[in-house]
Amino acid sequence: MKLNIKRTVLNSALQKVNSIISTRSTLQVLSNVLIEAEDSKLSLTTTDLDIRITAILEADILEEGKTTLPAKKFYEIVKELSGEEVELENENNHMAIKCGHSVFKLLGLPADDFPLPMKIAPIRSFSMEQMELSRMINLISYSVSQDDTRKALSGVLFSISDKNFTSVATDGRRLALVEKTMDDFYGEDGSVILPIKSATELCRLLEKEGNVKVEIGENIINFTLDNGVVMTSKLIDENYPNYKQVIPVSFTRKIEIPREAFTAVLRRVSLVVSEKNFFVKLRFADNKIEFNALSTDVGEGSDYIEIDYTGAEITVSFNPVFLLEPLSRMDCDTVVFKMNEGYSPVAVSNEDGFLYVIMPMRKK
Amino acid sequence: MKLNIKRTVLNSALQKVNSIISTRSTLQVLSNVLIEAEDSKLSLTTTDLDIRITAILEADILEEGKTTLPAKKFYEIVKELSGEEVELENENNHMAIKCGHSVFKLLGLPADDFPLPMKIAPIRSFSMEQMELSRMINLISYSVSQDDTRKALSGVLFSISDKNFTSVATDGRRLALVEKTMDDFYGEDGSVILPIKSATELCRLLEKEGNVKVEIGENIINFTLDNGVVMTSKLIDENYPNYKQVIPVSFTRKIEIPREAFTAVLRRVSLVVSEKNFFVKLRFADNKIEFNALSTDVGEGSDYIEIDYTGAEITVSFNPVFLLEPLSRMDCDTVVFKMNEGYSPVAVSNEDGFLYVIMPMRKK
Repeated sequence: MKLNIKRTVLNSALQKVNSIISTRSTLQVLSNVLIEAEDSKLSLTTTDLDIRITAILEADILEEGKTTLPAKKFYEIVKELSGEEVELENENNHMAIKCGHSVFKLLGLPADDFPLPMKIAPIRSFSMEQMELSRMINLISYSVSQDDTRKALSGVLFSISDKNFTSVATDGRRLALVEKTMDDFYGEDGSVILPIKSATELCRLLEKEGNVKVEIGENIINFTLDNGVVMTSKLIDENYPNYKQVIPVSFTRKIEIPREAFTAVLRRVSLVVSEKNFFVKLRFADNKIEFNALSTDVGEGSDYIEIDYTGAEITVSFNPVFLLEPLSRMDCDTVVFKMNEGYSPVAVSNEDGFLYVIMPMRKK
Repeated sequence: MKLNIKRTVLNSALQKVNSIISTRSTLQVLSNVLIEAEDSKLSLTTTDLDIRITAILEADILEEGKTTLPAKKFYEIVKELSGEEVELENENNHMAIKCGHSVFKLLGLPADDFPLPMKIAPIRSFSMEQMELSRMINLISYSVSQDDTRKALSGVLFSISDKNFTSVATDGRRLALVEKTMDDFYGEDGSVILPIKSATELCRLLEKEGNVKVEIGENIINFTLDNGVVMTSKLIDENYPNYKQVIPVSFTRKIEIPREAFTAVLRRVSLVVSEKNFFVKLRFADNKIEFNALSTDVGEGSDYIEIDYTGAEITVSFNPVFLLEPLSRMDCDTVVFKMNEGYSPVAVSNEDGFLYVIMPMRKK
């Protein structure tokens, strides 16, 4: 293998593929990046066996070939090089890296040691703007269960039904959902569960500009970004619970609340909660929400914001973290708080296609 | 106690005094900040028993008094408050904090539980610009020994002799020294050792503007910043080794090297060193410095920079970290590398009053 490539291009691609690399992997080749030069393209591939990321780059290929190199070390060197062009020349998995006055030789491992790609047979596919997919995942991903024993809940649901793409995350105590109509959907309706690590990695790769094509197979999902990056991930092979059950069909009260003031006051008052008293009480009455928190070891806090509400007094208590997480990720000026009587689920919405459902706590 | 104070003033003072607070302290009152309102001033004091920091603030004192509050929690609340003025009112170590619509009550501990201040009887004192003292400490502090068994070396030496203030740090393998003439020195010549933690804390407190008065007692040192912050620290009661011994009296070669290029190339080439081969070889010859590093497990790297040197060829090897640390903290365009024949100490200088001495490694 012998090629020339722009240093900045190589640098940013290595940065992209490197995040799933663990230097503590028991299999040494998993710390390496697979480097393939073919047909005037350079491909860089990393994998942790669950996720595989490939970046395909324009390069001046003088001689085709492939090898693997320690991914972190290769990236560190490319990052510190000074010069426009990098020359790479591989011989027996010894890679010469030349740029400016610098000459490096890095020891690699044979490309044949690197895991083969996971094969996908797409059942369904669709495209959307990268930024929109990133927005959707960010609006819900914090609700994924941290509890490893409930495997289905440890991922994000991607459900397609009647050209509607719905993404859901829940840990059993709260549920976040975001949906979107798709025009260019191909294939059968159905749903799959994307592991949270893959969802997080995907968001890191998605950019502000450009589209992403999503291809879904039986146990594999493929994200092809139009900047030359492809991410493939295993799916969680479990049945997702029927999330529609927990969403109330109707609400008797809908209250508009300014989102930023709500977030600021809730965050402030919640500073005095402690492990034993982990809740903030919200009292809706007389065009105000009063916030109260109390703990025997820290102290107490109260505050209020003005809203437009003249209905009957209602008091509900929440784990403040569970309210702050969606509020801080939403982007709208006003959120809508929807409630029924008694201890029934409360919904927060108003962000495009987004719905958050949470049970109040039985605290007075 | 009852008072009104500007929120931003209280906030930035709490940030300053809070860094030495450990929430894992066995003595609960050490997690607290001592709050004293007296003579139209509010004092905030924290201590870890070795260091004590006090910030004295302008406040509208309506009723004098004192108490202590959990420092981190108090700071978190003040940081999140919204409003210009904060009202503090203490009753039986229950502090009411009011600002805007917010009302907090925080549980404290009696002021009598808080450790008493360390008393100082100054033997010598001097003043300098805060920024200059900060510069001097930053130029040498990384050379302090990490090895707890050599107690004298685990601090920064402050030595005063003939109106010359010299600060030194060494771990036995390299030595960093910076000196400055002082016009307004009072007291006896002598030297003391400031613990590295205190030196680091001090640098965090020192600002770009204003002066600092340094008062040195037998076992205590006092730094009075003219922004109302006072830091007191215990000193290390040990004899510092005779550092002057390791500084060569003269050098046969003095070579000027552009600092930024030197730093960049050294950092780059050092990327291939490994634990077993932790050195970079520098070869001075033919108006160049050639850099080489090699390790059996990673690979090799080489580069060069152009300098003005036509003398005999010299090759010296260094632990690259030991060279990068001073180089990256210096601010001058050109550093001067001073050498003698054979394996004798090498000096790096050219920063105002700064000298760094290091032994080359016996590697070829």
